Amino acid sequence: MVFNTKSSRWLQLPTSLQRSKNLLEKIERADLKLSVIGLGRVGLPLSVAFVNCGISVIGVDSNASYVSNIRNRRAPFSENRFNDLLGKALASGKLTVTTKSGEAVRASDIIIVTVGTPVTERHNVDYSQIREVLSVLVQGGLEGKALGFRSTLGPGTTEELIIPYLQESTGLKVGRDFFLAVCPERILEGKAIDELHDLPEIVGGADEASKKIFSALFKKLNPEKRIRFLSTTGAELAKLFTNVYRYTNFALANEFGIWAEMYQQDAPEIIRAANFGYPRSNIPLPGFAGGPCLAKDGLFLDNSITFSSLISAAWKLNEAMPQHVADSIKRALGRTLYSKKIGVLGVAYKAGIDDVRLSPALKLVNILTEQGALVEVHDPYVRNKTVSIDRLVRNKDCIILAVNHPEFSKYKAKISQAKPKLVYDVWGMFDRVDFKNSKYMGFGRGS
Amino acid sequence: MVFNTKSSRWLQLPTSLQRSKNLLEKIERADLKLSVIGLGRVGLPLSVAFVNCGISVIGVDSNASYVSNIRNRRAPFSENRFNDLLGKALASGKLTVTTKSGEAVRASDIIIVTVGTPVTERHNVDYSQIREVLSVLVQGGLEGKALGFRSTLGPGTTEELIIPYLQESTGLKVGRDFFLAVCPERILEGKAIDELHDLPEIVGGADEASKKIFSALFKKLNPEKRIRFLSTTGAELAKLFTNVYRYTNFALANEFGIWAEMYQQDAPEIIRAANFGYPRSNIPLPGFAGGPCLAKDGLFLDNSITFSSLISAAWKLNEAMPQHVADSIKRALGRTLYSKKIGVLGVAYKAGIDDVRLSPALKLVNILTEQGALVEVHDPYVRNKTVSIDRLVRNKDCIILAVNHPEFSKYKAKISQAKPKLVYDVWGMFDRVDFKNSKYMGFGRGS
Repeated sequence: MVFNTKSSRWLQLPTSLQRSKNLLEKIERADLKLSVIGLGRVGLPLSVAFVNCGISVIGVDSNASYVSNIRNRRAPFSENRFNDLLGKALASGKLTVTTKSGEAVRASDIIIVTVGTPVTERHNVDYSQIREVLSVLVQGGLEGKALGFRSTLGPGTTEELIIPYLQESTGLKVGRDFFLAVCPERILEGKAIDELHDLPEIVGGADEASKKIFSALFKKLNPEKRIRFLSTTGAELAKLFTNVYRYTNFALANEFGIWAEMYQQDAPEIIRAANFGYPRSNIPLPGFAGGPCLAKDGLFLDNSITFSSLISAAWKLNEAMPQHVADSIKRALGRTLYSKKIGVLGVAYKAGIDDVRLSPALKLVNILTEQGALVEVHDPYVRNKTVSIDRLVRNKDCIILAVNHPEFSKYKAKISQAKPKLVYDVWGMFDRVDFKNSKYMGFGRGS
Repeated sequence: MVFNTKSSRWLQLPTSLQRSKNLLEKIERADLKLSVIGLGRVGLPLSVAFVNCGISVIGVDSNASYVSNIRNRRAPFSENRFNDLLGKALASGKLTVTTKSGEAVRASDIIIVTVGTPVTERHNVDYSQIREVLSVLVQGGLEGKALGFRSTLGPGTTEELIIPYLQESTGLKVGRDFFLAVCPERILEGKAIDELHDLPEIVGGADEASKKIFSALFKKLNPEKRIRFLSTTGAELAKLFTNVYRYTNFALANEFGIWAEMYQQDAPEIIRAANFGYPRSNIPLPGFAGGPCLAKDGLFLDNSITFSSLISAAWKLNEAMPQHVADSIKRALGRTLYSKKIGVLGVAYKAGIDDVRLSPALKLVNILTEQGALVEVHDPYVRNKTVSIDRLVRNKDCIILAVNHPEFSKYKAKISQAKPKLVYDVWGMFDRVDFKNSKYMGFGRGS
C-alpha cells in the first residue's frame, strides 16, 4: 500500500521518517520542549540535569503544594549539589514547574514519565499513577511526539499494556506516528546529578527510530554517554535484574552475618579477608537493606510466580533483619523491651539520604515501639520527629546505630561518655574497644 | 607456674618459642620436610608448587595404584602447565609419593592435609578421610610439628573437634607443643599452579606462632604473597562464604534466565546491558553451576539450620537446571524423549577441565537416558565413555552444548551441516543464525 486511504492529504502526510528526523533535529539544536511527568527523586534531578545542558523542561507533578515549594526553590529532598542547581535552573527560566499535565504534554516534543510505581502492602504493583499519565497522554495530541518511560515497570508492561492502550485510544501507531522507549533509572539516590552525567543509559526502544531519538536525547546530558539498546521488555528486565542482583547480594551478606553470629565470629572481618585480592569475590558487608528500589523491584518479578525464588528468599531475609536486631537487643537487655529507653541513630533507608520509604531502620523503630520500648531517633538528614544527638544519647538503656550515615562515626565519644547499658551496631561502624562502660554488640560480629 | 611439674627435664624442654623458631628457621632455609596428605586436585598441585620453590615434599595418598601412576609421571588429571612441572618435580628427587602416611608424618616438620570432605547423597558431611588422617597424626609424634588443614571444613570443626581430639590423644598442646592452622584452598581448578603463586592466602591460625609459621611457609611459593589472618573458625567460614557467594550468584543468573524465558527475552543480552559501565552490577551469565566445590560447600552451612536459606534456594535452582533443559528439549522434540537420538557436548562440571564430580552436564545425561533417549557424549577433556565429535553430530535429533569448553565454538559448522532437528545451547555460545536447518534454543534466550 503506497498511501493511507483514510487520508485525503497523503502527499502532505509526514512519514515516520520525517517525524523522527524532525525530533532528532530539535534535539540536535537543543531546541525542543521536554516534559518530565513526576517530580520525585527520579524526575526532578533529571529535569534539572537537562536544563543544566541547555534544554527547556516543563516539570509536572500532581501535588500542588509540592510544586509550589519547588517553584519557591525549596528542594523537596537532599541530593548532592542539587539545591544549587535547582535554584539556577529555575532562575534561568528554562525550568518551569506545574500541575497541569495536559498543557505540558500538548506543549512538548518529548515526554518522560517518572511517576512512582509502588507496591501495596499485599505486594501488588500499583500502576495508578501510570494510568493517570496515560489518560492525559491520549488527550494531548501524541502525534509526532516521543514518550520515554523511566518509572520501574514489570516485564512486558510496555509491550502488553502501555503500547496497546496508547494505540487503541488514539488510532496512532508507535514507530510511525509517535515514538516510545523504556529508559530505566539506575542512579544512586544522593548521587543523581553525577550519575545522570556519567552512567551509561539503557534504551529499550519500541522501534529503531525511538531508539535513535532517546539515544540522542540522553547524549545531551553528556556527548560521551554510552548507550545500550534493548527491547522495551528487555529494558524493563535489565532494571529489575540490576536491583535484584544488589538486593540478593545484600541478603547474602546478611545471611553470612547470621552464620557468623552462630559461630561467634566476626562477619565483616571474614568477608574482608575473603574479598582481599581474590578476583572472584566481591561480597558486600552486612547491614540493613531496603528502600523503595531494592526492596521493591524484585516483587515485580516475584509476583508472577507461584513458587519461592531467590528473590523471595532474599526479601524474607532482609525484611527479617530489624526483628533479628530487636530480638538480639531484647536478650541483651533482659527479658523484655517494655519501658526500656532506646536511642536510634538513623531512620533513612540508607546512608547519606533523607528517604524513609521501606526503611529497615524505620521498621526497627516501629518494632521496638510496639514492644513497649521508649524510642527516640536522631537523623541529621530526616528532621521530622527526630531529636538532637545530645538528647538522643542522654539516659538510655541502649543506643542503636541503625543507619551508616558517615556523620555518626564522630559520635563515638559522645555515646561512650553517655554510658548506655548496650551499644548495638548494625553496620560494624564502631568497635568493642570504643565502649569501655557499655556492652557492645555488632550485627554479625559474635558477642 | 614457672615450669611443668610433670617433667623432670624442664630446663632442657624446648619452649613453644624455641619450637616455632626452629620451624621458622627451617622454612627460611627451605630446609624442611613437608608432607602433603591427599594427592587430589588440591594436594598434588600444591606439592608440585612447593617442590618448584625448592622445598622437599612427601606426597601421601591411600590409593596405591593412583600413587603408582603419579610415580610413573602420569598426571591423574588435567591442569594447565601441570604435566611438565609434575615430571620435573619427580625427576628432581624432591617430590616423593607414597601410601605410607605414618612414615611420612614421622619424617616431616610440617604436614598439610588436603583429603576430600565430600557430602553423602543425603547431604551429610563425610569426614571419614579426615578421621583417618587424624588417627595417623596422633601416632606420628606431633611434637614440634605444624599441621595445616586445607580441606574444606564446616565452621568450628577445627576448634571443636580436631584440636580437642589431637590434644586429648597426645597430651600435647596446640601453640606450645605443636602448631596448627586452617589454610583453605580457593584456587580455580585448571589454574591451580598460577593461582597458588598469585592469590593471597587466608591463614586461620590456632595461635600467633601457628599464624607466623604458615605465613612463612606460603610465602615460599611467592615472597610477595599477601596473607590475611583469621581464627580457625573464621578461615573455615571465609572459604565457605567465598564459594557460597559465587554459587548463589550463578543461581541468580539462572533465575534471570528463567525470567527471560518467561518473557521471551534474551537473558545474556540483558545481563550484558545491565553490567555495561554500571559500577554496581557484576551479574554472571546463565549456565550450569555445579562441581565438587561450589555445589557442595554451601551444604556445610545449610546442614546446621532447620529453615530454608539463600543457600538452599540457590542449590534448588542450580540443581534443577538439567531437568529444566531436559523438559525444554522434550517439548521441542515432541511429547517424549523415548528413543530420541541426542548428542551431548561436554560432561565435565565446568569449562576446561576433566572433573565430572557433581557435574550438571552429567546429571543432564542421566536424566535424558532415564527418560529413554539414546545419548552419546563428546568431551575433549573426559575421554572415558565418550565418542568422537564426528560420531557425535551424526544422525541426531538433538545436539546439546552442555559445557562451555572453548574448543566447542569451532564445531559450529560441523553441527550445522549435520542438520539435527534441534540445537540446544545451555551457555549462549552459539546463535540462532548459526543454524539454518535446525531449530535453535538457548537457555534463558526465549525461543
